[in-house]
Amino acid sequence: MEKEKIADWFQRLQDSICKALEKADGSGRFQEDLWDREAGGGGRSRVMTTGSIIEKGGVNFSAVHGDLPLKIREALGLSKATFYATGVSIVIHPFSPMIPIVHMNVRYFELSDGQCWFGGGIDLTPHYVVAEDAAFFHTQLKNACDKHHASYYKTFKAWADDYFYIKHRKETRGIGGIFFDKLTPNENTNKETLFRFVQEVGTAFSPTYLHLIEKNKALPFGKKEKTWQMVRRGRYVEFNLVLDKGTKFGLDTEGRTESILMSLPPQANWLYDHKPSPGSAEEQTIHFLQKGINWA
Amino acid sequence: MEKEKIADWFQRLQDSICKALEKADGSGRFQEDLWDREAGGGGRSRVMTTGSIIEKGGVNFSAVHGDLPLKIREALGLSKATFYATGVSIVIHPFSPMIPIVHMNVRYFELSDGQCWFGGGIDLTPHYVVAEDAAFFHTQLKNACDKHHASYYKTFKAWADDYFYIKHRKETRGIGGIFFDKLTPNENTNKETLFRFVQEVGTAFSPTYLHLIEKNKALPFGKKEKTWQMVRRGRYVEFNLVLDKGTKFGLDTEGRTESILMSLPPQANWLYDHKPSPGSAEEQTIHFLQKGINWA
Repeated sequence: MEKEKIADWFQRLQDSICKALEKADGSGRFQEDLWDREAGGGGRSRVMTTGSIIEKGGVNFSAVHGDLPLKIREALGLSKATFYATGVSIVIHPFSPMIPIVHMNVRYFELSDGQCWFGGGIDLTPHYVVAEDAAFFHTQLKNACDKHHASYYKTFKAWADDYFYIKHRKETRGIGGIFFDKLTPNENTNKETLFRFVQEVGTAFSPTYLHLIEKNKALPFGKKEKTWQMVRRGRYVEFNLVLDKGTKFGLDTEGRTESILMSLPPQANWLYDHKPSPGSAEEQTIHFLQKGINWA
Repeated sequence: MEKEKIADWFQRLQDSICKALEKADGSGRFQEDLWDREAGGGGRSRVMTTGSIIEKGGVNFSAVHGDLPLKIREALGLSKATFYATGVSIVIHPFSPMIPIVHMNVRYFELSDGQCWFGGGIDLTPHYVVAEDAAFFHTQLKNACDKHHASYYKTFKAWADDYFYIKHRKETRGIGGIFFDKLTPNENTNKETLFRFVQEVGTAFSPTYLHLIEKNKALPFGKKEKTWQMVRRGRYVEFNLVLDKGTKFGLDTEGRTESILMSLPPQANWLYDHKPSPGSAEEQTIHFLQKGINWA
């Protein structure tokens, strides 16, 4: 299993997801930007803006290599080495506050000393948490995980709860999903087996998110719901810029800023000390933005 | 010079700045929130939203004390101690893209081992850089500095250029101003003398910013200028959440989140790979967002 095969599959995943999202959107088309990284490698960024359903969405592929940057070496406790990293990253911000924001990432990392691992996950950030949709989303992820290991869903669901927690707000970014990192081949699981799991996750993205688009796209909304969407997007920005390790890694290693920050919403608002009125759907949603809820 | 006297003066500075800004705005009024910090001390946050000129502005006072948090001890290389910190922080986001965003901070920090220091500064973030206004702003700061030390303006201007640099964008947040930290009493300068300088800076805020409001408030603008304002505000968010040490300090030490994040604009937009058209006023502005421009 060479790294080029993994990168190839990731590129085909990007193709198929872009195609599925364009079909679901109807009118929006992805704009492609090819870029090179000075120190080695490059990427294929694809961003859709002002589609019919998707207000701003990015589906990015990259495969970069070179000397391991000092900051990463220190963070990982590694000695001098070269690295290879490839992956697909997705963030979709829909126009309608009734359709959730979605994020997916699958990635593969390899070092010149022979170490390698996979990471990734999918998580959902509904502007309004709907129990039926949350159950559907988590069940889809659980089904994908269960095909590969009985403990995966439980472990990776808890990991997502912890990872997507906005400490300074005492709330989770959304309803979580699965998050995993450093899945390293060992005596029980070889690289091919791990890759098949990562492929399962990548493949689960389109049917899962497209169902949520189809189910919610015709729901009515007004000024109140748009205002709330902008507040929730503000929290999304706070998580991504203050806490997200992928964003930090990208900015620290002088990645392509526009590709890294495609995750930011087209618009976000900060209303001072905003508190939803008691009993409202907005307040309900806040109650659901906590760790440890068993949705599946 | 007891710490309480410094905190008292800071509170009176907050009063006088709020009064001056309310008068300049015409209709907007500051809403006051008193808050206590569980581990010691508290603050007086004052936020104005939807005034006639100020879309969102915060003028916050706080005086907190207690055990020095572990993170700060590590960052400062200090042993176990109690601390006292007091200051005033201001960020004003005007409606009009023709009026600049302004930021001011003055602060005093004291440790139980006897160490103490002042910090602070004022900096300006015009949506459109106007040479005449930039010269006025920097000359005001230079005049304030020159009354106290011949080297202050030069040193603190360069410090602001370095501090307010958005590395991942290769641009400064705005046209800078002055920034200083760890002004500690020594054989040449006692605490009273340093405090008088900090008072000079605090007192310079209102006449300087009010002049820029008055000069620019009647200028016409349209959709193009509002769009650009939202993009510039996005960069302001990026600086504050990714790079600003004060924000990080506040969030890390479990300060009052709404008071810390009052600095964020009421609305910000992220347009993928936005580039102003060649020769436009927007492109001109970007050319001015660099270190080392001698405005005064």
